[in-house]
Amino acid sequence: MHNDTGELVAALDIGGTKIAGALVDGAGRLLARARRATPADGDAATVMGAVAEVLGELLADGRRPRVRAVGIGSAGPVNAAEGTVSPVNVPGWRGFPLVAEVGRLTAGLPVVLVGDGVAMTAAEHWQGAARGRANALCLVVSTGVGGGLVLSGRLHPGPTGNAGHIGHISVDLDGDLCPCGARGCVERIASGPNIARRALETGWRPGPDGDASAAAVAAAARAGDRAALASFARAAQALAAGIAATATLVEIEVAVIGGGVAGAGEVLFAPLRERLRDYATLSFASGVEVLPARLGSDAGLVGAAAAAADACGLWETAGPGGRRH
Amino acid sequence: MHNDTGELVAALDIGGTKIAGALVDGAGRLLARARRATPADGDAATVMGAVAEVLGELLADGRRPRVRAVGIGSAGPVNAAEGTVSPVNVPGWRGFPLVAEVGRLTAGLPVVLVGDGVAMTAAEHWQGAARGRANALCLVVSTGVGGGLVLSGRLHPGPTGNAGHIGHISVDLDGDLCPCGARGCVERIASGPNIARRALETGWRPGPDGDASAAAVAAAARAGDRAALASFARAAQALAAGIAATATLVEIEVAVIGGGVAGAGEVLFAPLRERLRDYATLSFASGVEVLPARLGSDAGLVGAAAAAADACGLWETAGPGGRRH
Repeated sequence: MHNDTGELVAALDIGGTKIAGALVDGAGRLLARARRATPADGDAATVMGAVAEVLGELLADGRRPRVRAVGIGSAGPVNAAEGTVSPVNVPGWRGFPLVAEVGRLTAGLPVVLVGDGVAMTAAEHWQGAARGRANALCLVVSTGVGGGLVLSGRLHPGPTGNAGHIGHISVDLDGDLCPCGARGCVERIASGPNIARRALETGWRPGPDGDASAAAVAAAARAGDRAALASFARAAQALAAGIAATATLVEIEVAVIGGGVAGAGEVLFAPLRERLRDYATLSFASGVEVLPARLGSDAGLVGAAAAAADACGLWETAGPGGRRH
Repeated sequence: MHNDTGELVAALDIGGTKIAGALVDGAGRLLARARRATPADGDAATVMGAVAEVLGELLADGRRPRVRAVGIGSAGPVNAAEGTVSPVNVPGWRGFPLVAEVGRLTAGLPVVLVGDGVAMTAAEHWQGAARGRANALCLVVSTGVGGGLVLSGRLHPGPTGNAGHIGHISVDLDGDLCPCGARGCVERIASGPNIARRALETGWRPGPDGDASAAAVAAAARAGDRAALASFARAAQALAAGIAATATLVEIEVAVIGGGVAGAGEVLFAPLRERLRDYATLSFASGVEVLPARLGSDAGLVGAAAAAADACGLWETAGPGGRRH
């Protein structure tokens, strides 16, 4: 697969902590980078100012004439149909017209917006563990739980760019109230903070350094701590039910899991694969594989570029065997 | 929308009770019909013999030269990729090569196989309550709970023709064991037999006629019986969680509900709409509508024809506003 057209995408990855940018080429290389801390408590114009600085750095690059599109992956909810974003952790942006504002700064380049879970999925499908797969779910298990879908060989962002948001499907209809308003959401059980909370509630205690993160719970689980193991097992059960639901609804062949909590490795993946056999029982769903994500912290940028390239027909991101059929 | 090409599809609707067939035109009219009881306890050849009789009647029709394809909607699981079916209630057929067998009888016509939930969805999208909708879930709530999806304006059968199988997603990960092997499946809570079972377990008693069906429970609920109302409310809760999960995963705008249990009307629909507000909380999912199906017992035949027309490019079934974008 050769994408040596020289065309570039200006990619933005917008989160509650940082705003990252890069010029990305058709091979997925990051040719120029820029970055600002997100002024998350600032007003709408202040946050947009940080985006403008990142974009300004990228567009000052000598390769600017080769840039054909802008791709944005943003913390959600997003509304790709309206071009607006309302990131939970950036209260100054509610229904903020990000696509129009970025368009104003980029002189008529097409601007493509997707949620950050969809961006990560685009990256894993183009360059990572979902490459060549026609139907896949990619998950980010971290402070929250997000995701995205590849269907029939192509990224499936959905009309508003949020499809695949597995963190907020309920797998426990009478379960604990989730901040989203529903009960028993996958995120309410399987996110890093909830893994740590449950371990603490059932008797796990942090070490002398006071680290009460999910990574510390994972280390305790590897050392045999029962509360730590049980908390990861419960997270794995919820993820398994959610992945099985997705396989039953849209026939995925693989679930790719990234994000900080996936760094726990077999402490998470072993019980997840085991429980998946319990929930993915129908013939067409039972073969679903679970794989760790391959791309690291640049997945958001690579994926934002891939989503834009896909939407604008710039270059082929589906990979071998992954085209629509 | 004009589909006056004169082309016809020979449609088959194969269930555990009956095998129905029809010649269907581009306006969705059933021009010839045939029907046999399913010899559900017979061996593979006996069941196929009944299918052959139905097909034989249809192909003896004078309009035979206008038939361009065969469309089959079958009780599942099906495997459209392999052309096989394994209907739960037809034990003689396990991995039965239905597409090849029908192909042998129809002299080279293309044969398109989908699950019965997918067929019902194709019918509602072409002619019914999902018409003109780009993203929809259609459900059949009956002895079991099945379904199908319309995504980006087109039927989405999935690689094996089973996508949208909402009855076997778990919404209660610690819940009752389902015959499929998982726990807390939507069907385990919301199917007609489970509505009746739960009502009986909590104090409802059938009338003098001894009718212990979900329809009888619905009549009792309309008369104010508390156990009957509670059983429907629980079914509605499970359906709401499942529909919300689907909306969160693939961004549907409408859920269309058919099948015998949907005949309960507001006894089911009122609590369902109320609980959907509890579970479909994210901005892009919260607007999902719930509508009753419009097509009756012919939905399987109309939908099998639509799926075949769609797959073979015979005529337009997406309806106004419903094309892929």
